[in-house]
Amino acid sequence: MRLYGRNPVLERIKSNPRSIKRIFVEHGNPETTYVNQKAKQFGIPVTMVPGSKMMKLARNVNSQGLLAEIEGFSYLTFPDMLSVVKEQKGTLVFLDELNDPQNLGAIMRSLGCLGGFYIVLPTHHSVEVTETVLRIACGGDNYVRVAKVANITAAITKAKEEGFWIAGSVVENGQDLTQTTFQFPLALVIGSEQKGIRNVISKHLDIAVTIPMANPRMSFNAAHATTILCYEIFCQRKNA
Amino acid sequence: MRLYGRNPVLERIKSNPRSIKRIFVEHGNPETTYVNQKAKQFGIPVTMVPGSKMMKLARNVNSQGLLAEIEGFSYLTFPDMLSVVKEQKGTLVFLDELNDPQNLGAIMRSLGCLGGFYIVLPTHHSVEVTETVLRIACGGDNYVRVAKVANITAAITKAKEEGFWIAGSVVENGQDLTQTTFQFPLALVIGSEQKGIRNVISKHLDIAVTIPMANPRMSFNAAHATTILCYEIFCQRKNA
Repeated sequence: MRLYGRNPVLERIKSNPRSIKRIFVEHGNPETTYVNQKAKQFGIPVTMVPGSKMMKLARNVNSQGLLAEIEGFSYLTFPDMLSVVKEQKGTLVFLDELNDPQNLGAIMRSLGCLGGFYIVLPTHHSVEVTETVLRIACGGDNYVRVAKVANITAAITKAKEEGFWIAGSVVENGQDLTQTTFQFPLALVIGSEQKGIRNVISKHLDIAVTIPMANPRMSFNAAHATTILCYEIFCQRKNA
Repeated sequence: MRLYGRNPVLERIKSNPRSIKRIFVEHGNPETTYVNQKAKQFGIPVTMVPGSKMMKLARNVNSQGLLAEIEGFSYLTFPDMLSVVKEQKGTLVFLDELNDPQNLGAIMRSLGCLGGFYIVLPTHHSVEVTETVLRIACGGDNYVRVAKVANITAAITKAKEEGFWIAGSVVENGQDLTQTTFQFPLALVIGSEQKGIRNVISKHLDIAVTIPMANPRMSFNAAHATTILCYEIFCQRKNA
């Protein structure tokens, strides 16, 4: 896999250098000295390239002069994730049938900032952690573990059995988020951009919450809705 | 200007049909009957086109089979905005030197959902309301008024004179957002994606706030940070 861009590459060098196989630096990049020094420390080969070659390597995405070849994204198994989440008193976030890599990347960035969130994706009908996702995540991928599960309903049921309170985000008719007190440990379910939470999942929810809106014909972007919900959860979890 | 996509066009038809000059509908679009009926009601010409022609009209952006030619975006003057904000007990949001149209579009979408927010942009070194912004805003442009000002510092000073409390978002060393009680009427200042709030502006702030982060090397995307801040303001304003 390739990681493009200043923040994604620099954050990876700082937080997970051993996952980097090779770094490409464009001639004249202001981070050259820093990158060379770190690369030497961890035995990572560095190749200096002209702008034209960098454009080609980055497939015309603006790499901001830095590109790293990295190992494939390392997913957790769901049983391992459950153990870690319980130990760390974290929060599960089930993203059901999310389609847009920009949204997954944006969610990983926000949740990486807040900390203590763990993402579960279904293996089918869902975006996964691609190069685009990593570019948008801006380093969030180093702070948010992700699991893929074949059957997301079974995973939600399993979390429920393990004592997680299951909250789902719905566009309308849920309990007002600003009036909601979450119970912990908590798992949040976010539906797809188009269809929301599927019926097969919604019957397992302990609560459905809605972000209050002044304009009922509008709807939040799925990533922005997730950011708001996780911010609210973050606030309540601190005091729980 | 052109408006692309199902949600942006349908929302415009519902909330501001008189700003539409012409609608292009791709053959087979499921909304054809609805669009024709509304267009007839408001005297808007409708042209049915094949997919290939639609792709050309939409300059290869996925139009989802709907495109509208609309009047240029209608900005408010800052004095007019000040009157409206005071009357409506709304909140001003100064976006200083925001560069990314995706971010402005995302902010307009979130703020359009929450309601009661008014955006001020500087005329220089800033993104403005372009076709891309409207596409990402998904109809939010019908619910968020925007003003452009030549001198944003002067506008902030003016708002302060008019009794607005000026809060700025900073990446670090501000007061913890979760511990902050805002005063109303309120103006929020968001800095650029790269540089944050400029010194020339920060000296006018009544308070600098920071969204708390578990991982200090990370930073929120500017649009997501704005969404979190405005959600928190929305919650407090309801109870103010």
